[in-house]
Amino acid sequence: MNIEEFFQLSAGKWFSHRTSHHLAFNKSEDGKSDIIIEMLTADHPEVIKLCQLYEIPSSSASCGAKVSWNGITEGVQQKYSGSTVLVLVPDVDKADEGKLLREIGDTEKALVPGRYKMGSDEALTLTTESETICSEERLWFASPNLRMRVLVVKRIDGFSTASFTSEIRMGGSPTASKVSETANPVSS
Amino acid sequence: MNIEEFFQLSAGKWFSHRTSHHLAFNKSEDGKSDIIIEMLTADHPEVIKLCQLYEIPSSSASCGAKVSWNGITEGVQQKYSGSTVLVLVPDVDKADEGKLLREIGDTEKALVPGRYKMGSDEALTLTTESETICSEERLWFASPNLRMRVLVVKRIDGFSTASFTSEIRMGGSPTASKVSETANPVSS
Repeated sequence: MNIEEFFQLSAGKWFSHRTSHHLAFNKSEDGKSDIIIEMLTADHPEVIKLCQLYEIPSSSASCGAKVSWNGITEGVQQKYSGSTVLVLVPDVDKADEGKLLREIGDTEKALVPGRYKMGSDEALTLTTESETICSEERLWFASPNLRMRVLVVKRIDGFSTASFTSEIRMGGSPTASKVSETANPVSS
Repeated sequence: MNIEEFFQLSAGKWFSHRTSHHLAFNKSEDGKSDIIIEMLTADHPEVIKLCQLYEIPSSSASCGAKVSWNGITEGVQQKYSGSTVLVLVPDVDKADEGKLLREIGDTEKALVPGRYKMGSDEALTLTTESETICSEERLWFASPNLRMRVLVVKRIDGFSTASFTSEIRMGGSPTASKVSETANPVSS
């Protein structure tokens, strides 16, 4: 699976169950949300806009995704929602790794792209680093309708969090939409 | 990192925090345990014994590990403990993948080896399949003292579980013991 195929398979609506382990305290916290992932082509206005923010030619982007979520943190019963845009800019000499552009709220800060890499085991690794935080996220499909994500965030003050998210597809299978586009009315 | 280095880095005592997501019920369950991992050389009696059980020449094993645990499942406050032995038998033509032998209690059943594979992203994938269950576990180091594990178990009746384990090293760093063996008294 290449990175574009990974993004295509990610498109759709997902039920997302997240558990965070606060490593210094041996405590965990659960959250549940609905997530919608839309794949964006390289010429989508949101992709072009994000490339401009990072001062990277949009012609070098391969694709992007818009991720929207709507959820609740259990225990404190705190609701949250939001959306973000991600854009992939492959390295010139390597097909399956490159820069990861991410929409962030605070545009006062200098924008430093993260990195993405597709592994030989079909897991996607996303890394971002700033002066105070470094994060590594691994994503893979246990099956086409079951996606796993593990995010490790290390803060400069030593408090680390490891979050595990299992995501079950609720609809919008890219396989089904592809099938309908190719004159075969049988959805899978 | 090759598979032997992965096993060496795994050796030691770990505090292990597991959260299981029961996917059909959107429920999670926590468990905490102490785990001790000992690396076994290819000529260790336990490695030879397990190879004999699987009717595989022990000369083809590269190494093994003994894993012992002592823990508690939260909520039901159920204690559990046990140990198992794993042995790696690399494929002849591939250095970083091969058969995974695992000690199991029920020796009446035909022993079918699982598979292991080290990915280019330094994650180890272990897979086992039987008539009723298939499981895939991914393990990697977020840092030398922080290990991540995700186990996905799919049962033939459709009930799947995804378990996430974060493991923090409590002692027995292989780096420290290596240093002490090489005439340099400074532990890292």
